[in-house]
Amino acid sequence: MKELIGAAIIGQSGGPSSVINASAYGAIKAGLESKQITRVLGALHGIRGVLDDDLIDMGKEDPEELALMKYTPSSALGSCRYKLADPDKDDSDYRRILEIFKKYDVRYFFYNGGNDSMDTCNKISRYMESVGYECCVMGVPKTIDNDLFGTDHCPGFGSAAKYIATSCMEISKDSRVYDNGMITIVEIMGRHAGWLAASAGLASYFGSGPDLIYLPETDFDMDQFFADIERIYQEKGNVLVAVSEGIHYADGSFVSEAKTSATDGFGHAQLGGLASLLANLVKAKTGVKVRGIELSLLQRCAAHIASETDISEAYAAGRKAVEEAVQGTSGYMVAFHRVMDNGKYRCELTLVPLASTANYEKKIPLAWINDEHNGVKQELIDYVLPLIQGEPEIPMEHSLPRYARLKKVLA
Amino acid sequence: MKELIGAAIIGQSGGPSSVINASAYGAIKAGLESKQITRVLGALHGIRGVLDDDLIDMGKEDPEELALMKYTPSSALGSCRYKLADPDKDDSDYRRILEIFKKYDVRYFFYNGGNDSMDTCNKISRYMESVGYECCVMGVPKTIDNDLFGTDHCPGFGSAAKYIATSCMEISKDSRVYDNGMITIVEIMGRHAGWLAASAGLASYFGSGPDLIYLPETDFDMDQFFADIERIYQEKGNVLVAVSEGIHYADGSFVSEAKTSATDGFGHAQLGGLASLLANLVKAKTGVKVRGIELSLLQRCAAHIASETDISEAYAAGRKAVEEAVQGTSGYMVAFHRVMDNGKYRCELTLVPLASTANYEKKIPLAWINDEHNGVKQELIDYVLPLIQGEPEIPMEHSLPRYARLKKVLA
Repeated sequence: MKELIGAAIIGQSGGPSSVINASAYGAIKAGLESKQITRVLGALHGIRGVLDDDLIDMGKEDPEELALMKYTPSSALGSCRYKLADPDKDDSDYRRILEIFKKYDVRYFFYNGGNDSMDTCNKISRYMESVGYECCVMGVPKTIDNDLFGTDHCPGFGSAAKYIATSCMEISKDSRVYDNGMITIVEIMGRHAGWLAASAGLASYFGSGPDLIYLPETDFDMDQFFADIERIYQEKGNVLVAVSEGIHYADGSFVSEAKTSATDGFGHAQLGGLASLLANLVKAKTGVKVRGIELSLLQRCAAHIASETDISEAYAAGRKAVEEAVQGTSGYMVAFHRVMDNGKYRCELTLVPLASTANYEKKIPLAWINDEHNGVKQELIDYVLPLIQGEPEIPMEHSLPRYARLKKVLA
Repeated sequence: MKELIGAAIIGQSGGPSSVINASAYGAIKAGLESKQITRVLGALHGIRGVLDDDLIDMGKEDPEELALMKYTPSSALGSCRYKLADPDKDDSDYRRILEIFKKYDVRYFFYNGGNDSMDTCNKISRYMESVGYECCVMGVPKTIDNDLFGTDHCPGFGSAAKYIATSCMEISKDSRVYDNGMITIVEIMGRHAGWLAASAGLASYFGSGPDLIYLPETDFDMDQFFADIERIYQEKGNVLVAVSEGIHYADGSFVSEAKTSATDGFGHAQLGGLASLLANLVKAKTGVKVRGIELSLLQRCAAHIASETDISEAYAAGRKAVEEAVQGTSGYMVAFHRVMDNGKYRCELTLVPLASTANYEKKIPLAWINDEHNGVKQELIDYVLPLIQGEPEIPMEHSLPRYARLKKVLA
């Protein structure tokens, strides 16, 4: 087999995570080490950086600074939410990408992201094939939502789950401290899949956490929600609830988007998100002090409490994409296969065709959610627990994280 | 001097912190070791536990479990917000406290909390003196707000400041990642003093953090706020703002309490707090994507990222209260005195009369805030930095914090 020699481009896309840079670093480092890859270019703001010829030379970065990417949250190369057109309808973006690939003699393209990014990756792969431009295109998965199809789990999820479980444990300690009762509602990311909110269950399982968890995998019933809360409140005198932002009624409408409602008495667009909306409803219903907490951006970028397992798997996924590509593989996403050896977790890297992963969403099996639809079962705990293991040695300066500072020298 | 022999009560009050239990543990451990203290009792839910005869025997706890208190956030003994009456007007609570003190032969009383708790402590001290009941009463400071008078800083502040600085650094990484602009507004605790919000400045100083910081020490001007944001947005394409929950207009009214406003167009009580309110105003004004984030409870209970300096000072303060009390000292709060030896920080323990600390609030010196009133100066950074130093070795189990589980055996 003829060895393909040329430059590589790596881009990041979609929402950031605590370990997306660990994946990028894995790919960049393997690329810089490869004899077949002449130059490693970083696309600024994902595919936009390719379209705009906004590429940086990763070889010009200080290697020690580059190595800090492994522990630096958010997308160091910048992200975008740009969606490529269907090439059969409008191929202007693809012709531009091809032009840039030719300009820099790009023969390797690595794209690091979630569902939409795998779709982008797949479209580019198919286009290059259709025009006969030799180029290996590989996807490196990333999403805290853990909803990518074809992989046991996704880089970014383990760290987010660890942040959520730890934070919910701490919030539980805090919110149960007074003698007069309190109800606390924590809103957790996850529009269509409840993996993140379900991870709050680890806090309950291993110490102190939510009494109730509501997920988008089942239909939400406001009356049942009130009844659940009142029952726990009578029992304990305080209640901690975790809700996924994507909870929805049986008709499919999001609870968070309820613009008017007979029960809330406000009749206008809510400003403060789901936690705030539910807190106001529960306060009106119970008269008890209620606090709504939105974990917000921190759940996807709190690298200070990342999972070492997640970091090293993310790094390995980036390396694997390059190692496979230089052997001629193209059109695949790196995926994780879980192996349990006598109860001990191990993660094997595999490949899945990009076409099969793009635009599907993997949800929590219903069998892992309790019958009351307000909590998770042991199976869910067993699934998440290995993914949050290990504390990374995060480089610190003045007792604050020392994150990578890239020079970003234009190519 | 005759040695005072008898039982000790320790109680916790006010809002929890990451290190209030380190202080309690310092006092409990010193109490259990002291020959003059016959029994160490914990008051459940602060002074309410005394009034309700709800006391637990700390000597019956497993010593290893007790030692975990040093790393466990929130008030392990429970808290309350109960305010004692002025003893000159209504002494019924005090007579009840005296009755309980006599019942258990309590000769030492330690109260762990903020402004209000020092007031409670002072009133009890004065009452016991007035009725001639021999008892040493000592205050152990605690407040993340850092607003206690008579001490260089307060246990709890350093850990909260570290959480805030780290989180703002991570949010800064996350919120600047897209090519299309975004404005992010982070709401930080602090009703009257801006120490916590000002600590977000550490993130900017040592990496990446807020572009603008607004504090309650100066008057807030909405037009200037809009102008500041627009200026930064033109410069950088994205803006990160930190605001103290206590920012107020020149007339003293809180920005967060603006029920109606000509500029917001809503004309009703805001539901989502200050961050949400400001986010909506800025969005309406600029048309840019704006996100409001409230750090909420986590800033006071995120013990997983506590400052080791804070933990050991908090512990030392608890011990000091007992060591002083058994030597006959009463009516004082333990305080911190900062010593800088050739630029190296050291903290000395001192005592201040309870009467002088109760109900005063220490604010940031205006000279530490920039002339534009939208940021902090080097002096503030130099003040906070030593207080966040050091990473504690937090006991972990399954890669989640292993917090103390007390048996709470009633006395």
